[in-house]
Amino acid sequence: MSKPDKLKARQPRGFVDRGPADVAATERMLGVIRESFSLYGFDPVETPFVEFSDALGKFLPDQDRPNEGVFSFQDDDEQWLSLRYDLTAPLARYVAENYDALPKPYRSYRAGYVFRNEKPGPGRFRQFMQFDADIVGAGGVAADAEICMLAADTMEALGIKRGDYVVKVNNRKVLDGVMEAIGLGGEENAGRRLTVLRAIDKLDKFGPEGVRLLLGDGRKDESGDFTKGAGLSDAQSDVVLALLNADFSSFEGRTAFLDVLTAVEDWAVSKTSWDSIAMEKPALYEGVSTLDDMSKLLVAAGYGPDRIRIDPSVVRGLEYYTGPVYEVELTFPVTNDDGQIVRFGSVAGGGRYDGLVGRFRPEPVPATGFSIGVSRLYSALKAVKSPIVDARSELPLVVVTAMDNKSPEHMPAYQAMVSTLRQAKDENGKPFLRADLYLGSSGFNAQMKYADKRGAICAVIQGSSEREAGTVIIKDLILGAELAAASRDVKDSAEHKERQAQAQFAVPAEGLVEGVKRVLARHG
Amino acid sequence: MSKPDKLKARQPRGFVDRGPADVAATERMLGVIRESFSLYGFDPVETPFVEFSDALGKFLPDQDRPNEGVFSFQDDDEQWLSLRYDLTAPLARYVAENYDALPKPYRSYRAGYVFRNEKPGPGRFRQFMQFDADIVGAGGVAADAEICMLAADTMEALGIKRGDYVVKVNNRKVLDGVMEAIGLGGEENAGRRLTVLRAIDKLDKFGPEGVRLLLGDGRKDESGDFTKGAGLSDAQSDVVLALLNADFSSFEGRTAFLDVLTAVEDWAVSKTSWDSIAMEKPALYEGVSTLDDMSKLLVAAGYGPDRIRIDPSVVRGLEYYTGPVYEVELTFPVTNDDGQIVRFGSVAGGGRYDGLVGRFRPEPVPATGFSIGVSRLYSALKAVKSPIVDARSELPLVVVTAMDNKSPEHMPAYQAMVSTLRQAKDENGKPFLRADLYLGSSGFNAQMKYADKRGAICAVIQGSSEREAGTVIIKDLILGAELAAASRDVKDSAEHKERQAQAQFAVPAEGLVEGVKRVLARHG
Repeated sequence: MSKPDKLKARQPRGFVDRGPADVAATERMLGVIRESFSLYGFDPVETPFVEFSDALGKFLPDQDRPNEGVFSFQDDDEQWLSLRYDLTAPLARYVAENYDALPKPYRSYRAGYVFRNEKPGPGRFRQFMQFDADIVGAGGVAADAEICMLAADTMEALGIKRGDYVVKVNNRKVLDGVMEAIGLGGEENAGRRLTVLRAIDKLDKFGPEGVRLLLGDGRKDESGDFTKGAGLSDAQSDVVLALLNADFSSFEGRTAFLDVLTAVEDWAVSKTSWDSIAMEKPALYEGVSTLDDMSKLLVAAGYGPDRIRIDPSVVRGLEYYTGPVYEVELTFPVTNDDGQIVRFGSVAGGGRYDGLVGRFRPEPVPATGFSIGVSRLYSALKAVKSPIVDARSELPLVVVTAMDNKSPEHMPAYQAMVSTLRQAKDENGKPFLRADLYLGSSGFNAQMKYADKRGAICAVIQGSSEREAGTVIIKDLILGAELAAASRDVKDSAEHKERQAQAQFAVPAEGLVEGVKRVLARHG
Repeated sequence: MSKPDKLKARQPRGFVDRGPADVAATERMLGVIRESFSLYGFDPVETPFVEFSDALGKFLPDQDRPNEGVFSFQDDDEQWLSLRYDLTAPLARYVAENYDALPKPYRSYRAGYVFRNEKPGPGRFRQFMQFDADIVGAGGVAADAEICMLAADTMEALGIKRGDYVVKVNNRKVLDGVMEAIGLGGEENAGRRLTVLRAIDKLDKFGPEGVRLLLGDGRKDESGDFTKGAGLSDAQSDVVLALLNADFSSFEGRTAFLDVLTAVEDWAVSKTSWDSIAMEKPALYEGVSTLDDMSKLLVAAGYGPDRIRIDPSVVRGLEYYTGPVYEVELTFPVTNDDGQIVRFGSVAGGGRYDGLVGRFRPEPVPATGFSIGVSRLYSALKAVKSPIVDARSELPLVVVTAMDNKSPEHMPAYQAMVSTLRQAKDENGKPFLRADLYLGSSGFNAQMKYADKRGAICAVIQGSSEREAGTVIIKDLILGAELAAASRDVKDSAEHKERQAQAQFAVPAEGLVEGVKRVLARHG
């Protein structure tokens, strides 16, 4: 190939490579999550990356190709295939396909990359990893409670302290019930309901006053852009805003909410006691009761509101949720891109999706689960300096240099050294170091730079004089770097000279492993 | 959705799901490989699943879409993207893109799924996992020797005994040199050379006589189908067949091969000593010398021909190999689909590919590496009953039943029990069991079937009478199954009755963990 023909090495937008520290730390993090999920009796399952587009629900009746957001391609037989965009739709397909063979309720977990054919941006990728746990075939709130407890325990297993996270729980039926109660029920109000949900979702960002604007006529932002509101009356908006702070667990809290609710003109409630809502507005009543039942289960199992808390402001975007929804929020402060101190925010979320498996099955199949955003969580663990993502968990590296690498004559001896190091075991029969032989063609200085760049703890050197004497030199790269950085005065001292002797010393060739051990012991 | 609209849950051809035993065992297997690669100083790296099609080398000059064998789709900006079909092409792109920042030589490993848009068949999937290790930037045979040693050590780390595997090494230059020597050099013979390589590759399948037919006029198989041969003369075929058994490491072996070689009419060698080939046929000479140098390195490091062996019959399909090629073969016998006893066969392979990174870079960048076929290797570990793929490596499972699950009243108590079990730790502070709460709506018998299906070791039961007495019942499901299978005579014995008392016993509710421990201890 002539020079002008050289390809440029580049990546498609929204796809990234990951280096050694990221890969190793993520691997350890996934291991901890896996163990946590396993203790709850969840079993792993793995589905492929490619599914029929219709199985993912990505065909609308009036389309002749899958809709946007997914990467799709046609198979030989013209059927459309897509890369999975989450791990829930493939699970629904899997359970439906293997329904009779699976234990029910079916608890499973799975981790893997998902793909979104969307515009990438800062922190937004077109390939990212999720780690999901789901219980399929259990319709009661005990299953939802288990998912929330699992989420809380997993955060602690990962080194996020109690108080630094909270699992927030809401119920879609409470939101739906309130909408219906204020006159936004029915098919004809679907659009307005969505606008209300979007407004609620902006509580963290714009505060209650901003939400009120979005519920009413609309909101103009700093740049002058106007977002049209849901057009609610003040009384209707009052109900929605009261909901966001409602405390349904106490008599006072429920009564206070009722007072706001009954003020809405077009919903005349005949009795003002909470229990009467069971008859008048069953959806709202059921939603609130379910939240109460969940609270009882959680408290009984030792998960108080410091860990798992009912929060009526949690919305969660996905349309397929049908009951309880959860969000795992990390509450510790971080500095955002604009220099402001903010809460770290959401790292996982989920909810009940009773309709999803039923797309494939004649019988109704209830299901609930949650999904961890792996790269968000990884950033969080780095922010709290969790030992799980600490790079020092790797074994130390030793580099054997190849002084006479211009001729192949001496390579067998170097190869034997690195091989000896790799086979060294500690008293428990476990390897305690990683060993690398320099295989390039550069000279000694470049080889020492290589050892530094690789983060080696020591280098092993044998030139012609050592070869004749039957020795090897062991160079402590950490101590060596310290000594090199010392001031001139220090360098003249006797102590410095003694330390230099420690930083680079000869041992008999057969004492190679013992010599390396001396350096490793020095640096713990 | 009305009934006739239900989707069928199904998968595209060539894609499969994997259940809990497979996922967990593969995970452990990958962990062992990772540790083995790490000890050799290799660092992990991860590239995305999607690359520009041209970066994968999947565009030929006269094509307006990527050629077959890869799954491809067009991005918004009309550029073609493809799912990676191996891990080598993405590595070449990665190294070229990050060339200046990487330590050189660059040792890296990576595991992941790759995709082939091919016709699936038995044991042939369109998504499968590879685990690769590569050294980029090292042109000498010491790098190739390291890869072979790494392959051998990894097999042993996985529990495949010495003698049950062999790493076979050849050099593409030996094959090319012999072709040239028998008059098959030059562009005009490229097709015939390929036919010769394919014939050699069939040695295991058809034996030397079958290969001779494929080298000559052609071969008719049992069904009468005729495969056209390479059209070599008898003398030319003699050389190729002699090559397959050649022993280049001894003087006698080299001379014996020379005798066959010089009998070819159209190559009149002036001197019949091996060293003279250095001048006459440098490619063949270099190939053989390189194999010799590798042998010396391998022996010096303690890897004799019982582990890594020169074998001139190794071909390896991929066109991009430019020097040494390797194949890891498992030699223990297995029964194939036709009931015949055969060697297990190849589980990994690789070689030197000095041209691949150079597609992107102005300077030449030598590289060598190998790739493990993960699912083939997994089958092999199951065949040799390696402890790594043994399902019993998981912690034992305890199922808490929910006797009164028709009313939510008692669920908090059951939830508290399962939570207590999950938090139980052994003397080292490690969890020693997995615990599952039955969350379905079925009755007691179905719950016991559920516990069996999940492979639980014991069940925890609390009905109304136990609740009143403040106790729980622990049922040993393993002992219970044994006792249930006993004959009528045995069942009448006093010993049987005593064992029954052991198989199902009550403990105070606060002694739940101790009671479960008793059962776990019983079954090791």
